Amino acid sequence: MPSPRDHDTLASIGESAALLRIFPRLPDSVAGLLGPGDDAAVVAAPDGRFVVTTDMMIHGPDFRLAWSTPHDLGWKAAASNLSDVAAMGAVPTALVVAIAAPADSPVTLLEGIADGLRDACAALAPGCGVVGGDLSVSPTLTIAVTAFGDLEGRPPVLRSGARVGDIVAVAGVLGEAAAALSLLFTEAVDPLGHPDARLATALRPRTAPQLAPTPPISAGKIAALAGATAMLDLSDGLAIDSARLARASGLGIDFDLASLRAGGADPALALGGGEDHSLLATFPAGTPLPAPFRRIGVCVAGEGLTVDGAPHDSAGWDPYRDWSGSAG
Amino acid sequence: MPSPRDHDTLASIGESAALLRIFPRLPDSVAGLLGPGDDAAVVAAPDGRFVVTTDMMIHGPDFRLAWSTPHDLGWKAAASNLSDVAAMGAVPTALVVAIAAPADSPVTLLEGIADGLRDACAALAPGCGVVGGDLSVSPTLTIAVTAFGDLEGRPPVLRSGARVGDIVAVAGVLGEAAAALSLLFTEAVDPLGHPDARLATALRPRTAPQLAPTPPISAGKIAALAGATAMLDLSDGLAIDSARLARASGLGIDFDLASLRAGGADPALALGGGEDHSLLATFPAGTPLPAPFRRIGVCVAGEGLTVDGAPHDSAGWDPYRDWSGSAG
Repeated sequence: MPSPRDHDTLASIGESAALLRIFPRLPDSVAGLLGPGDDAAVVAAPDGRFVVTTDMMIHGPDFRLAWSTPHDLGWKAAASNLSDVAAMGAVPTALVVAIAAPADSPVTLLEGIADGLRDACAALAPGCGVVGGDLSVSPTLTIAVTAFGDLEGRPPVLRSGARVGDIVAVAGVLGEAAAALSLLFTEAVDPLGHPDARLATALRPRTAPQLAPTPPISAGKIAALAGATAMLDLSDGLAIDSARLARASGLGIDFDLASLRAGGADPALALGGGEDHSLLATFPAGTPLPAPFRRIGVCVAGEGLTVDGAPHDSAGWDPYRDWSGSAG
Repeated sequence: MPSPRDHDTLASIGESAALLRIFPRLPDSVAGLLGPGDDAAVVAAPDGRFVVTTDMMIHGPDFRLAWSTPHDLGWKAAASNLSDVAAMGAVPTALVVAIAAPADSPVTLLEGIADGLRDACAALAPGCGVVGGDLSVSPTLTIAVTAFGDLEGRPPVLRSGARVGDIVAVAGVLGEAAAALSLLFTEAVDPLGHPDARLATALRPRTAPQLAPTPPISAGKIAALAGATAMLDLSDGLAIDSARLARASGLGIDFDLASLRAGGADPALALGGGEDHSLLATFPAGTPLPAPFRRIGVCVAGEGLTVDGAPHDSAGWDPYRDWSGSAG
């Protein structure tokens, strides 16, 4: 039976009361020296530097409320930003979170997002927590996360450090987020093509890689300690992101088709599918690869991507060019 | 004559090309050790800590494109966040900026926002710059800024440190942003009440305190060095924000009516008007107030606000309760 509080909206209880219901759900940050409540937070940066990345999730282009639960939204907003911190070889320490929501949103939406942020931090980056935020009104539900990390005295692992002969390796899944999105677009829509919540629920857990991904955050530090020469987060897909690493490093990459097929994966999805938030890293030839990294290719002289030596087109997804409001 | 590039939209040129046009316009950060281009930026935090605050501006509730130029939007997004950093007694070092815009937005909109960010940093916090960001598609133009600051070894100035007998002082204007907003709502609307760009242009510079505020950012460090016991940024108005400081410090504040009238100001606007982003600070009795601070009251035993000893109602503005999409 719904409690009376389930009917509260942001407009009916106001910003201050909404924040009082959200704050206790947010995860604490071990690095937080001063948390929410003042004009700004204070966060520890023990080695005199901090890593920072920011990313927005927007209702429509980035998620559908018919498919994602509020918990999924908080989880994915945290996971995708934590992954960018990990890709530098850093350990995530803290997040700040700005949420803009329609005034008639139920407060339970914000509570669910807070729970997702908390559970993602606990599962993927223990010790990382939310140190501050902002709550606003918008016709479009928007979640902006800024994430911080500690390099623990190490140099950051850039995209540009790979050398010819380096092993190309990945930690995490390839193509599973895209396969799950495809499943949602084909099987979780009504006859008119609109997202359908009941059908989406029935498809869980097959859609989890898209709706609540579990990127290997701790692998970022592991790669750095193992001598990774370059690294990045796979957000736009292996083909487009590995081409970025290759371009920044001034070389080409040759993938092993058999490795891309490992575990029964579809190589086309493995190369083309975005949003896995796995980590792509390069290591000097001969490096014993640390778990959870597995070899998928090698850095070669030249430019561009090949698969078993055959050229691969690395054209990819662009949010401004390819997004259609009607098609989703 | 408009150049062909004036017709480019985010959708027509794509995210990568848009970023290439924005990056050269963004201000450099002296503290930026690694800027845009990798998965995350790296920023210096010389004393082993950093101050962080985040704030979103949303088309509709927070600004109107008919009234604000793109330059204004970038300027105000920077200024309002820099002010939260200053309110801790810190010196702003860097920003990250996430922008979500409709796919049919002209690229010149983003260029103007970038120019505003650059000019605000140069004018208000020299040395502070943009170290990273994110560009997304949204039906609602949204600008999320996260700002960082350096405490230079000092403790942060909190809201909770004021003591009975402390001087209450302000740096910056009082009520001017609200007066400018009122002017826009009465004189920059067409007969149907819709924002009108031509009328708004004619009202400049009287509307600048609302559209492109110039908060006294350097006063934050000045207050800290002068021994400020508490401080905050006046974003929701003197009455509501000073009540927060009073509550956090466990005391009351008595304002001098004559001080609130200084310079011909309307005391009701000075107390009730939001968005000035001036700094309210308390100093031990007898402290020679450093410029640009001026005395406006005193901390007293008890709770709540008084003006020349008479009770003042501190109820204020709440974004969820008071915003109406039609009325603006």
